[in-house]
Amino acid sequence: MSETVRLTPEEMTDLSLKVLTHVGYGPDHAQAIARMLTTCQMDDCQSHGLFRLFMCVQTMQAGKIDGHAQPQVASSGTAIVRVDAQGGMSLLAFQTGLPRLIEKARSHGIAAMAINRCFHFSALWPEVEALSAKGLAAMAMVPSHSWVAPAGGTRGSLGTNPLAFSWPRMGQDPFTFDFATSAFARGEIELYKRAGKPLPEGVAIDKDGNPTTDPQAALDGAMLTFGGYKGSALSIMIELLAGPLIDDLTSLESMEFAQGTGGAPYHGDIIIAFDPDQFSGGRRPANDARAERLFADILDQGARLPSQRRFAARARNTARGYAEIPAQLHRDLLALLD
Amino acid sequence: MSETVRLTPEEMTDLSLKVLTHVGYGPDHAQAIARMLTTCQMDDCQSHGLFRLFMCVQTMQAGKIDGHAQPQVASSGTAIVRVDAQGGMSLLAFQTGLPRLIEKARSHGIAAMAINRCFHFSALWPEVEALSAKGLAAMAMVPSHSWVAPAGGTRGSLGTNPLAFSWPRMGQDPFTFDFATSAFARGEIELYKRAGKPLPEGVAIDKDGNPTTDPQAALDGAMLTFGGYKGSALSIMIELLAGPLIDDLTSLESMEFAQGTGGAPYHGDIIIAFDPDQFSGGRRPANDARAERLFADILDQGARLPSQRRFAARARNTARGYAEIPAQLHRDLLALLD
Repeated sequence: MSETVRLTPEEMTDLSLKVLTHVGYGPDHAQAIARMLTTCQMDDCQSHGLFRLFMCVQTMQAGKIDGHAQPQVASSGTAIVRVDAQGGMSLLAFQTGLPRLIEKARSHGIAAMAINRCFHFSALWPEVEALSAKGLAAMAMVPSHSWVAPAGGTRGSLGTNPLAFSWPRMGQDPFTFDFATSAFARGEIELYKRAGKPLPEGVAIDKDGNPTTDPQAALDGAMLTFGGYKGSALSIMIELLAGPLIDDLTSLESMEFAQGTGGAPYHGDIIIAFDPDQFSGGRRPANDARAERLFADILDQGARLPSQRRFAARARNTARGYAEIPAQLHRDLLALLD
Repeated sequence: MSETVRLTPEEMTDLSLKVLTHVGYGPDHAQAIARMLTTCQMDDCQSHGLFRLFMCVQTMQAGKIDGHAQPQVASSGTAIVRVDAQGGMSLLAFQTGLPRLIEKARSHGIAAMAINRCFHFSALWPEVEALSAKGLAAMAMVPSHSWVAPAGGTRGSLGTNPLAFSWPRMGQDPFTFDFATSAFARGEIELYKRAGKPLPEGVAIDKDGNPTTDPQAALDGAMLTFGGYKGSALSIMIELLAGPLIDDLTSLESMEFAQGTGGAPYHGDIIIAFDPDQFSGGRRPANDARAERLFADILDQGARLPSQRRFAARARNTARGYAEIPAQLHRDLLALLD
């Protein structure tokens, strides 16, 4: 077993704040990012926890982000909340617009938040869980960079385009999922490359559009979506709703904007919130019971609900007051402060 | 090539109306259903065209549907339109609520229609295309019967739970998809059974929860979702949004309600509409161009957009003024009038 370091939430937040302010994020952005990283790390979500500080640093070094941008919330009588992130990281924009989204979802029954002009590196489940924690159901979608080929295609047109959803459950962890519509995460391909292992069949094509199991050929070529033409259709929907619908970039445009500089992609983010009190016409307890019966039927047959492992990690880490991160990661993060 | 019969849209509608009124549908329901069947048949969508008259007849014979139910639209200041189908077929309810949904989408920016207590047998693409024809983007979801096992499960808990989406394109056919979240349509398994062919791997399990390629064992067991755990998560989301969220049945409950009588399942239907004019903050032409650039990039690499074949059939059949249906189907439909 590899060496680990125990960090309390306060220590994670403190380390994150130090790294983020050191490289040029203002206090508001640093706080919003540190909170998200700590939330993910306490769920043992290694890929989106403190490890992502490297991407935050790279994004700042790429020179396009504004570490002090103040998000602007636009007010209107519609069910849409618009938050202009003004070229900053998405998290402060999300946090700034969230109270309005909750308010609008409760008054209109359904509402959407469009975050524009943001850099985005984070998991989507904390966004939808911020809403299910308030008793609302929520869906979130973002594009990324055009690394993913459409079904039947030969090159990247689509992003890894994650879809996240959360459903509030009385007195329990919510039903939440957050998955990329690409068959594999880009980071997973990197891990296969480092391990010198071939990829499974059906996850990537090379630069000539031919199927490949070679990680480097996949990185030079394109990834495929999960679920064949259905996953591809879903990915295109995410491009449209989180891009042109909300006046923001597609993954193709986001990739061009980056000009190969690396760091977090720059684009929009759409979050849709549903108020079960409004939708159920006042019969929420009976309908919550319906949903619970479905969950029970799934669990009863030995199947898992998505995120169960993450919630178990959260419970364990919260109870003991710390999470463990690899000692090497901890050393590498401290080195960022030099 | 098997024998076919040419029918004009008027002849399809006329035949449908005769069959529907003959078995007990009132004129309003017969008109709404006939219009849908004709629309599907003109797109050469054989599985949801005139063939579905048999299911309409079976649904009436099962004795639970009200062929004269008048849908009730509930008014409120929210962005939700509720239509109580009162135990009738969904189509008249959809048609009745549609103008309010369009109105609400335009005024709130995002709106949802919840159709309750309806029998539902139809494709979802005509629902979302009714909205994209008005310049709105739309998503629709319904449960069905619990024929589909969750990822890692051993028995049916979920419906075939289709998801449909349509995006309006200026002066062109919309971008539309409509797919079941089950790996196979239930009707496809029936076709394999009749043809005596084994199913592909990974689409079904037998009644003991073991993988099977035997169509009968699959019908006695359960289908699987497309795309593994991701498709399964998506299917659960559809159960929740088109069921408990809107105060209506899950696929488990719908199956119980049917008591094995066959015909169309009885449940709810949710349609979400998005107004690109509101979401894009007045910059719609530039954003339409963004979406078109994405479509062009997909087509340019030899990939297809979903529904392309259907739109080609529509153009051909509309130009020549008729569609072709199998002569045997035509004879069987006429026999329903005896």
